[in-house]
Amino acid sequence: MPELASVNGVVTPIEEATVPIEDRGYQFGDAVYEVIASYGGRLLAFEAHLQRLTRSMKALAFAPMPLDSLRGAVVGLFERAEIARAAVYLQVSRGVAPRNHAYGAAMDPQIVITVREVVEKPAELRERGAAVITVPDERWQRCDIKTVQLVPNAMAKQKALDAGAFDAIFISREGEVREGTSSNLFAVRDGCLITHPLTPNILPGITRRLVLDICRRERLTVEERIFLEDDLFAADEVFLCGTITEVLPVAAVDGQPIGDGGAGAITKRLYDGLLALAVGTG
Amino acid sequence: MPELASVNGVVTPIEEATVPIEDRGYQFGDAVYEVIASYGGRLLAFEAHLQRLTRSMKALAFAPMPLDSLRGAVVGLFERAEIARAAVYLQVSRGVAPRNHAYGAAMDPQIVITVREVVEKPAELRERGAAVITVPDERWQRCDIKTVQLVPNAMAKQKALDAGAFDAIFISREGEVREGTSSNLFAVRDGCLITHPLTPNILPGITRRLVLDICRRERLTVEERIFLEDDLFAADEVFLCGTITEVLPVAAVDGQPIGDGGAGAITKRLYDGLLALAVGTG
Repeated sequence: MPELASVNGVVTPIEEATVPIEDRGYQFGDAVYEVIASYGGRLLAFEAHLQRLTRSMKALAFAPMPLDSLRGAVVGLFERAEIARAAVYLQVSRGVAPRNHAYGAAMDPQIVITVREVVEKPAELRERGAAVITVPDERWQRCDIKTVQLVPNAMAKQKALDAGAFDAIFISREGEVREGTSSNLFAVRDGCLITHPLTPNILPGITRRLVLDICRRERLTVEERIFLEDDLFAADEVFLCGTITEVLPVAAVDGQPIGDGGAGAITKRLYDGLLALAVGTG
Repeated sequence: MPELASVNGVVTPIEEATVPIEDRGYQFGDAVYEVIASYGGRLLAFEAHLQRLTRSMKALAFAPMPLDSLRGAVVGLFERAEIARAAVYLQVSRGVAPRNHAYGAAMDPQIVITVREVVEKPAELRERGAAVITVPDERWQRCDIKTVQLVPNAMAKQKALDAGAFDAIFISREGEVREGTSSNLFAVRDGCLITHPLTPNILPGITRRLVLDICRRERLTVEERIFLEDDLFAADEVFLCGTITEVLPVAAVDGQPIGDGGAGAITKRLYDGLLALAVGTG
């Protein structure tokens, strides 16, 4: 079960994989990506990830690429790595060209894929919930496009760890609760779920969508609407969701406990629902 | 006079230079850069560029790096390339590590340098002035840090070219004039120069600073203050400035001519002043 990388189809150990310095992903952050998780050798929501990647590429006017070739490249490396519980990282950059802001006519997109074993979160974190901090959202205004321009996310995540927390939540200058550094966020109050609507300010999360599907099936009320930091503190439950995050309870925000401080009943139900989907029994 | 690249001191032709896919510059845009121009074999404002790079690295909490080693790396490659009129590109990324938003303890910064011949702008563009378009500023809120997160800049530049213009000017949602995609901007009205003050929303341009120095010496009045799109249209002269841009007159904004539509007297004077500085006679 080797961890592997592929750069335009050339397969190597991850540490040996390289790209040209003039790959625009390196000099302009001009690349988009997806992270796809497998459970028991099966990729969860693979088509939805490919669709979102295509949307990101289109938003940045990358040269179009047949979905079949992307799909084949991912499946090929995933099968070769033989890792049942894998995180597949798929990055597509606009291409390689002498450095120039303008990208002109179509260039060949570069495809980089890695397959790694997922490091599971500690059971205690899943049971007791995570502490998070809030940070001002200083990101660009197109966070719906999943680019590798992740410096503010990296800085916020590190700030959270340095503060002894697990993650940071981006808050707009109007006080609106947006999302985590690599996850979306839901709050629960009086049995009703609230999450930021799909706007250019948040990522259209695949796990967010799976959670919404489970809510519909289980007849849980959900409001996709803007809500404020104060609503977060008043919530009975808060959770983060994402491909690797799955559904993760938030126990405290900026040191203030949320609800009873552990994993709430609805959060647990949605986590179980997601895992059931993932292993094909949901 | 070969065009050369150096990756952590290993010198190759530019096309052959590579970096690991897990260089954080590639997966997180977690890298900062400078472009330095030489005139007659002499690097202009080299120390100011190194200082700004250090400031960018510090703002992102990169591991500190002795300025001497950076200086030596650039000078070494520049001298080896023997290009009198060169554009030296210097990119420092946080380091190489298995993909993870958090960067934890210090890692070794990666140093990539290229030295290329400068392609001079057509004389006609310098004489008649450039057409520019305006675009909404959707960039992140720390444009004072010179990172490689340049997707909005690349998109705006390409949009300008597609519209038959030379560059795009970022306008805030409040209508404030910020800067070009790789340059700062000055407007001139009634003999007084106006430019955006140094805030987190614009790059603290080295050429901007050289222009301000020339203005002081030549007793030209300058106001560093916020100004609006309307002020741009009412200006007698507008120009862009930057390391490769130098001082470039703007003849039209969104199709509306500025002043008499060519290079204005003050713009010409500042261009001449900058070139005199560059060749060591100013």
